[in-house]
Amino acid sequence: MTEQSHFERDTRITSTGAGRWSTQLSAAWNIGTNPNGGYLILPVLRAMSSLVDQPDPITVTTHYLRPGLAGAEAEIRAELVKPGRLASNLRGSMHQDGKPRLESLVAFADLDTSTGPDVDITIPAPDIPPPDECIVRSGSDQGVELALLSRAEMRLHPDFANAGSLDEPVIDGWVRFSDRTEPSTLSLPFFADCCPPSIFATHGRVGWVPTLELTVHIRRRPAPGWLQVRNRTEDCQGGRIIETGCIWDSTGTLVAQMRQVGLLLDHE
Amino acid sequence: MTEQSHFERDTRITSTGAGRWSTQLSAAWNIGTNPNGGYLILPVLRAMSSLVDQPDPITVTTHYLRPGLAGAEAEIRAELVKPGRLASNLRGSMHQDGKPRLESLVAFADLDTSTGPDVDITIPAPDIPPPDECIVRSGSDQGVELALLSRAEMRLHPDFANAGSLDEPVIDGWVRFSDRTEPSTLSLPFFADCCPPSIFATHGRVGWVPTLELTVHIRRRPAPGWLQVRNRTEDCQGGRIIETGCIWDSTGTLVAQMRQVGLLLDHE
Repeated sequence: MTEQSHFERDTRITSTGAGRWSTQLSAAWNIGTNPNGGYLILPVLRAMSSLVDQPDPITVTTHYLRPGLAGAEAEIRAELVKPGRLASNLRGSMHQDGKPRLESLVAFADLDTSTGPDVDITIPAPDIPPPDECIVRSGSDQGVELALLSRAEMRLHPDFANAGSLDEPVIDGWVRFSDRTEPSTLSLPFFADCCPPSIFATHGRVGWVPTLELTVHIRRRPAPGWLQVRNRTEDCQGGRIIETGCIWDSTGTLVAQMRQVGLLLDHE
Repeated sequence: MTEQSHFERDTRITSTGAGRWSTQLSAAWNIGTNPNGGYLILPVLRAMSSLVDQPDPITVTTHYLRPGLAGAEAEIRAELVKPGRLASNLRGSMHQDGKPRLESLVAFADLDTSTGPDVDITIPAPDIPPPDECIVRSGSDQGVELALLSRAEMRLHPDFANAGSLDEPVIDGWVRFSDRTEPSTLSLPFFADCCPPSIFATHGRVGWVPTLELTVHIRRRPAPGWLQVRNRTEDCQGGRIIETGCIWDSTGTLVAQMRQVGLLLDHE
């Protein structure tokens, strides 16, 4: 029997009845004292995945209602809203201490199938220095303890050494699981939300940026190896930030897109 | 008593019990025989709006499950998932003939309030010819009857006369309600999904592009007048299209962003 990966072990679910599962949230994916939002959605996707034949979550929207409680058990609820040939839609949520932590709306499909004419339009990967010429991300970049770095390795563009005085609110880098588990369509939503906020590039550590809503579109099955990420802050209004991002696999193929609303809050 | 606008009249809801409303779907917002997806979400937002104090839907995700039935009654269900000071999260759905037509996850906030430090990052409006130098959109552009044009006036960039042979999968234009009702944060989600598919710019009328999932972020309250729209097809995989868009008001201020997954289907 091979040893389980961090991803498998820390997102394991147990059925507790029709449409109900339990999971044990690990503290190893924390940013400060809270589990990373991308991690929280993984066991919910596992539960949903057990309800449909299609293997790939193609659109994953999550509303973060309250921080998850690290190291504690969580209840997952999931429901197939509509099964379909081209896509199946599901609804899910996570609860702890009787309170909903997140609410999610997801569609699964099979990325190996085609719905109609294929068209050659995509977003090419930007040219950035390779991982070993990038900066190893550490907790001190963000002023909080990043247990998360025990689970995901991150290399940031060398320019990020000057975060706070860069021209564009953009962050480029490379990410992978630290135990070298290869990325999959089920794990990509995590990588869409694991980098420091791109607004730090221009404005430095202006505040804490919890995610209110995150939508990840999975586009293709990733090849093994590092994932390349580019996130950009597009708009900020009254502290409400829109951040958009792309993930490419090690062959430079677009595998995911994300857009989220974050709240820029003063440091506590 | 002033006459009701199309928007008010065609999105009117009547409470039928706790968390339940009925609405009469108008056929005047049809594309071919189906109601436009952006229109369908409007009465659901009205129902949600009645459950919260915050006036502005700031993130609106909708999964389209089945076409709506034009000219028929629909049941709306909505539920406050979590009330909050900075944002309140709601879930909603629309049903006809006992079948769910759409499922939605929305957060409302007050765009007049601020959560933290404001930061000057936004997306400027592209420079395009004014509405009276643009092409009036007609049904023949798309090969289907567009009852929708009785409700929304659209002017497309003059370049769109060469749709099918343009270099970029981009559509620029201007939109407004045809009865001149001014846009509001409640009506913006409609304008995010009322233009022809931007893939037509490069590839012509390659197929029918129903929306699977649409997320609209409302950024600011729009000034009166025309809305400027730019939509771009960013990626296509197996007929699954990602289209991203922005809406600016008549002062050039970004008021909404959208991203959707559409399915490129062969013409029937």
